[in-house]
Amino acid sequence: MSFTEEEILIEVPFFDLDPMNVVWHGNYVKYTEIARCKLLEKIGYSYPEMIKDGYVYPIAKMDMKFIKSATLSQKLLIKASLEEYEPSLRIKYIITDENGEVIFKASTMQICVDAITGKSIYEAPEGLKEGLKCLSI
Amino acid sequence: MSFTEEEILIEVPFFDLDPMNVVWHGNYVKYTEIARCKLLEKIGYSYPEMIKDGYVYPIAKMDMKFIKSATLSQKLLIKASLEEYEPSLRIKYIITDENGEVIFKASTMQICVDAITGKSIYEAPEGLKEGLKCLSI
Amino acid sequence: MSFTEEEILIEVPFFDLDPMNVVWHGNYVKYTEIARCKLLEKIGYSYPEMIKDGYVYPIAKMDMKFIKSATLSQKLLIKASLEEYEPSLRIKYIITDENGEVIFKASTMQICVDAITGKSIYEAPEGLKEGLKCLSI
Amino acid sequence: MSFTEEEILIEVPFFDLDPMNVVWHGNYVKYTEIARCKLLEKIGYSYPEMIKDGYVYPIAKMDMKFIKSATLSQKLLIKASLEEYEPSLRIKYIITDENGEVIFKASTMQICVDAITGKSIYEAPEGLKEGLKCLSI
Repeated sequence: MSFTEEEILIEVPFFDLDPMNVVWHGNYVKYTEIARCKLLEKIGYSYPEMIKDGYVYPIAKMDMKFIKSATLSQKLLIKASLEEYEPSLRIKYIITDENGEVIFKASTMQICVDAITGKSIYEAPEGLKEGLKCLSI
Repeated sequence: MSFTEEEILIEVPFFDLDPMNVVWHGNYVKYTEIARCKLLEKIGYSYPEMIKDGYVYPIAKMDMKFIKSATLSQKLLIKASLEEYEPSLRIKYIITDENGEVIFKASTMQICVDAITGKSIYEAPEGLKEGLKCLSI
Repeated sequence: MSFTEEEILIEVPFFDLDPMNVVWHGNYVKYTEIARCKLLEKIGYSYPEMIKDGYVYPIAKMDMKFIKSATLSQKLLIKASLEEYEPSLRIKYIITDENGEVIFKASTMQICVDAITGKSIYEAPEGLKEGLKCLSI
Repeated sequence: MSFTEEEILIEVPFFDLDPMNVVWHGNYVKYTEIARCKLLEKIGYSYPEMIKDGYVYPIAKMDMKFIKSATLSQKLLIKASLEEYEPSLRIKYIITDENGEVIFKASTMQICVDAITGKSIYEAPEGLKEGLKCLSI
């Protein structure tokens, strides 16, 4: 049960491949970021809104599980689900291939930080909470 | 207690920075890979030796903890320690800054795979075990 | 006047931005590659077909002009046009923003190389020429 | 004849390789940036000094020639030479391999821009000119 979720489709580009002809594992961090940004856009609390409110949301933890490899031009579905927003932002990711097979799983934990003082904030910004309220109506 | 370890020094390049003027979190995957490759070189069982023996060693799991940020031209020390080599290759990473402060921790788990059959192999290749034996003498 | 062309739309991701909050110049190489791959797909002579025929098509020259910067979430249109296919593959690129303003121009020159001998080939592979013939009918 | 030059050594990392097992062409942009940053550091007018003075120095043009490919663990020497600093910053790059063979050439042109007004400035900042004067003594 997640608060809200978002899906995006990407097509594996040539420059993401390694000498084994599969996506280099570090590139999955990019795929999760694209999906996370879309999820935050849906909530209405993206990077520009955070900055405007004086917050940054650095990644504090990230866990990844690589289940199957992917190769050139494969169409991958990346689903990001918001699991928690207080005291930290927890998002889960699942990537599936064209056959619906799960090829990758990950989770990230982000902590809200005051951009001026550098202090951690354990209550979610108003803008984030309001965005979530609007989605749940 | 690790079997063996290796350290490398990197200097944060401009292109690794994000709009917050700090290293984008996904770039730490590159830093761990540079240290892991040096560790495997020290053991004498790098990517070319694996390929020659018919093995690949894909990353199956990776966990990262981002403790402090790093910025342009900082000199970072990346230590990779081999924790286990059978049934899987487990390596731990610690990154420290110029003051010796830990800014990042990670661990990876790799499984040896037969390059032809695609089957997992839970015994380490002879080349890897011999390399480790030589180091321990 | 180009033989054929193709367009793709990309949305600038966070990880492509630099500390000036604009796309780091090196990332435009990726944007041109995505468009070039789509152009070659349209012709029916992509990377897998080349490899199957025993050819590789390395980039020998690339010129880039950076006219305006782009930032987070901007939608960019990348047009790739085939200008020449013998003795070398010459492709031109133009990137425009949402207002139709040109923000980037580039050109690449690729030489067909025999994957076994490593020798340059100045006549286009049959598969490429046939693909172009089909498009022109 | 260049005003000043600087050299750096890099070792090709695994993550810079493409499915042909050679450095993906776009990664050479990173190599040139590392050398350019070192050259500007030598002059004493790097990114932090520019920002402090209220200037940015975006890349306006970049030309690249890919002569030979490079692969895993090769040690490459990247030389950056300052050819001109007014009205624009022009730097040339040559990459040679362990045998001294030239594998890549490039040139960049950067224009000094006022960070507040966004206007181009065709006279080099005082800090840059003084740094060059110190080097020539």
